[in-house]
Amino acid sequence: MPGKNLEKVRWIEFTSNIDKRGILTAAESGREIPFEIKRIFYVYDIATDRGGHAHRETDQVVVAVCGSFDLSISDGTVKKSYKMNDPKKGLYIPRMLFIEIKNCSPDAVCLVISSTHYDIKKSIRNWEGYLEAVDKK
Amino acid sequence: MPGKNLEKVRWIEFTSNIDKRGILTAAESGREIPFEIKRIFYVYDIATDRGGHAHRETDQVVVAVCGSFDLSISDGTVKKSYKMNDPKKGLYIPRMLFIEIKNCSPDAVCLVISSTHYDIKKSIRNWEGYLEAVDKK
Repeated sequence: MPGKNLEKVRWIEFTSNIDKRGILTAAESGREIPFEIKRIFYVYDIATDRGGHAHRETDQVVVAVCGSFDLSISDGTVKKSYKMNDPKKGLYIPRMLFIEIKNCSPDAVCLVISSTHYDIKKSIRNWEGYLEAVDKK
Repeated sequence: MPGKNLEKVRWIEFTSNIDKRGILTAAESGREIPFEIKRIFYVYDIATDRGGHAHRETDQVVVAVCGSFDLSISDGTVKKSYKMNDPKKGLYIPRMLFIEIKNCSPDAVCLVISSTHYDIKKSIRNWEGYLEAVDKK
């Protein structure tokens, strides 16, 4: 049985304007994004699988703005994998799930929109620590 | 003489973590980004020069997260051009400047971080309207 946070993972369709000039995709704080945006970051020039951590108090929306990759998301019991290759939608990932980025294309850019400023003390940096935190050990 | 808003355009160095796994670049509301982030959007599959508008009440930070392009920014009298090709820094552009995107590489992704939700009534959609608004006609 997946935990309740894993069940809350969902796609969010952003607002896209497509015409002959190109595509413009937008997401707003408190609208498409179900929280106030406190931080954005993007991962690129990705040479290996990465991620492998969880956040105690941070909700995130992840987008493949360029290229493709897989997101593996676990609650300590069940693991789900999501193919990320469409900049027009984001994947909402609530706090306390263990996230890994895998199978990146060479041009992949993974954009993450976060509900908090960064605080390393509120992130869990490895699987063992995560299992302890969710009491699955 | 450039108007005072054009003089406020400046580069913002984001926080980047570079290691053998790749690069992670981050920017936070009220820290690297000098306002609360209310909206993000990105322009891609760009087939032609675009932009050509100004915002009455919106400040922005623009980043080339992928590929390259030029940003042309005018106050109605003076026009400046900025080469955008480094995801580790953003260009801060205050309100009421006329912005155009030019010379995009095929893979260009232009990420814009905005201080307001979108309101078409508060944007100026062409050069003539802009000159009127800044009283340069």
